Amino acid sequence: MVPHLTTALTGPLLELEKHFLGHATEIERWMRVQWQDHMPPFYASTDLRNSGFKLAPVDLNLFPGGWNNINDVFMPLCVQAAQDAIERICPDARQLLLVPENHTRNQFYLQNVAKLVSVLQLTGLDVRVGSLLPEITAPTTLELANGGSLTLEPLVRTGNRVGLAGFNPCAILLNNDLSGGVPAIFKGLDEQWLIPPLHAGWHMRRKSRHAAAYDRVAREFGEVIGIDPWRINPEYGVCSQINFQERTGEECLAAEVDSLLTRIRAKYKEYEVDETPFVVVKADAGTYGMGVMTVRDASEVVGLNRRQRNKMSVVKEGLQVQEVIIQEGVHTFETVDDAVAEPVVYMMDRFVVGGFYRVHTERGRDENLNAPGMHFKPLAFQTCCSLPDCRQAPDAAPNRFYAYGVVARLALLAASVEIEETEPAEADAA
Amino acid sequence: MVPHLTTALTGPLLELEKHFLGHATEIERWMRVQWQDHMPPFYASTDLRNSGFKLAPVDLNLFPGGWNNINDVFMPLCVQAAQDAIERICPDARQLLLVPENHTRNQFYLQNVAKLVSVLQLTGLDVRVGSLLPEITAPTTLELANGGSLTLEPLVRTGNRVGLAGFNPCAILLNNDLSGGVPAIFKGLDEQWLIPPLHAGWHMRRKSRHAAAYDRVAREFGEVIGIDPWRINPEYGVCSQINFQERTGEECLAAEVDSLLTRIRAKYKEYEVDETPFVVVKADAGTYGMGVMTVRDASEVVGLNRRQRNKMSVVKEGLQVQEVIIQEGVHTFETVDDAVAEPVVYMMDRFVVGGFYRVHTERGRDENLNAPGMHFKPLAFQTCCSLPDCRQAPDAAPNRFYAYGVVARLALLAASVEIEETEPAEADAA
Repeated sequence: MVPHLTTALTGPLLELEKHFLGHATEIERWMRVQWQDHMPPFYASTDLRNSGFKLAPVDLNLFPGGWNNINDVFMPLCVQAAQDAIERICPDARQLLLVPENHTRNQFYLQNVAKLVSVLQLTGLDVRVGSLLPEITAPTTLELANGGSLTLEPLVRTGNRVGLAGFNPCAILLNNDLSGGVPAIFKGLDEQWLIPPLHAGWHMRRKSRHAAAYDRVAREFGEVIGIDPWRINPEYGVCSQINFQERTGEECLAAEVDSLLTRIRAKYKEYEVDETPFVVVKADAGTYGMGVMTVRDASEVVGLNRRQRNKMSVVKEGLQVQEVIIQEGVHTFETVDDAVAEPVVYMMDRFVVGGFYRVHTERGRDENLNAPGMHFKPLAFQTCCSLPDCRQAPDAAPNRFYAYGVVARLALLAASVEIEETEPAEADAA
Repeated sequence: MVPHLTTALTGPLLELEKHFLGHATEIERWMRVQWQDHMPPFYASTDLRNSGFKLAPVDLNLFPGGWNNINDVFMPLCVQAAQDAIERICPDARQLLLVPENHTRNQFYLQNVAKLVSVLQLTGLDVRVGSLLPEITAPTTLELANGGSLTLEPLVRTGNRVGLAGFNPCAILLNNDLSGGVPAIFKGLDEQWLIPPLHAGWHMRRKSRHAAAYDRVAREFGEVIGIDPWRINPEYGVCSQINFQERTGEECLAAEVDSLLTRIRAKYKEYEVDETPFVVVKADAGTYGMGVMTVRDASEVVGLNRRQRNKMSVVKEGLQVQEVIIQEGVHTFETVDDAVAEPVVYMMDRFVVGGFYRVHTERGRDENLNAPGMHFKPLAFQTCCSLPDCRQAPDAAPNRFYAYGVVARLALLAASVEIEETEPAEADAA
């Protein structure tokens, strides 16, 4: 049931996986101790890229969609992990309000919401879904393509609490990334748990802050198990004064791209990697794979044409891009059915609970796969990420998946640090 | 993959399961709140009997063997739950010592130990196995029939700590039920976690104390979801001054049996159950299915013949029986391949992590199945106990298994209460 999984350059990755396997006890103990000091996010997903010589997260989502793509065999793991998450945040909760994105026409997204509802219900919560859409003025049941259904209800604000008619939840789980800012109805709440906290929304969040936190996590982890953190960490730079439409800040961007490419070239030389380095320019607050550009030379970001500038200047909810992160590109040498693929790992609380491959038949191994035309292989992670098998070869599926689970949890830990560090002072929070 | 599962009398059980399904949210929330107040045992297994009109635990084991019978698909659940258990008891542990029973010739038991070692290693612990056997004077590797191996090492006492040569663990997990008393090497330890605590061993533990705790748990649970607790709780009585060899205490036993049978008859009448009531007489401190007798009439316990008296008077480790519990017998109307079967549910921390059917081709539905000739169906619980499916019929496998998981966790909660209540004063503990 596991799809054919190939890695063009197996040598160094085998070495990295072997290293993880040989240090699994230290890794797990170190993780356990980290989670004593840091509160894990309720849930998260991360995109990994596996170039053979490098296995690294390139994105971490604190409002993960795509739960519908998780294999049903992982449901018990999801439920068990969700129980931990609920106990950690609101142990005496009876009712939970789930607030999704406004995509009522996206069947996949709606199935994702329905799957989340079913996981959370199984932890013993009365779960209902409250919509921010103005057209939802009464409970509205949507039929899903998979035979299920989902009822959206209008949100009701009463004093300092948000709920539904006849439903006063102790906790509100956001599956809406707040790209458009915090809706007025969520401002100035008290006595209710907002999960994740509002400042984790994309109106405040910056990829570069996550990268900075991951930098430190990767460095510490590298010391613990004795690896060069570069093997699991994409280098990055930031340009914070860019305006693609007005063509200002291009020089800063070009200089950062050049500096980063130079650093990558040095690393490729050190590791004798015979590939062309590239970087990915991304809106620092962007999501959904929007506002992303692959660059192999600094000259490519100077004198962008109108189409390129339009593409880079606006992200989800029409937000203008002013800050970009320039991230070391990590080739993906994995393929599923001959198409380029990257693993996406899902987590709840501090546990890996599933994953799948994002596959794109039209993209190259140095391109962003989170783009129209992508599809998912939900069967891929038939086995789970927590069970390395020392008796099997380092590149056997359980062991490769263990390596994915380790790196994904490092990104999760970085997100936890990032959320702690960006927590606003109490006055701002309200 | 789920074996054919039939229940002769489906009506009332369907009603019970339907009731559990309809109250899953209350049940899960109530459980969550209970685990805020009570510390779950590290691990446990429980034998359930399902008579259709009644679904009840008849035994709870705090030193569960048989992990080798758990389907491998449940390994991720075990590892995840074990991580919770470790974090709860000794989050900064690096090394864990596992102390098994002295059955070095029992291949099944050794495979059980090896399975436990692998689960615990995957939580990031350095796990080694210390034997109480005097003949283990040096590390001894045993080859297992399933292709694995297990290394037993001699225990080493140093001051107030127990370990192995060059191995100073922070925690000691007992898979040895201490039927023969606490070995001298474990007396007066400090600074090390003993799991479960010593007073949970069979040298101290009494089935009747567990039954008393379960009584209260079942009553409270019954109130929460509105069922007669008898539906999930076997009635019981105690005789504490019995000597089968000297034939003293027989009258007390006969009177208790009679009183219990009378109470059961009344309940059968109330529920219109057309079955012959029976009780099971068990050594109050016994285990391994030893010292167990099925009785349908009080006269059967008077004037026992020599064979019966021998069978009842001695349990594991040659302990003399002085106290017995008389437990309401619960028929098992489940069959696997036409043989009588009972579910055995395994738990770690507060989670159900697997189970199987104990099957006996030579026994009747009102007999103890934990007897020579029994076998196990590890494939049975292909699906897990935490995922009721409201869209399916109440007797569909996921829903039946959910009911098992609920009742098993009630027994687990009772064990937690029992351990708390029997904790010796500090002076005794040392």
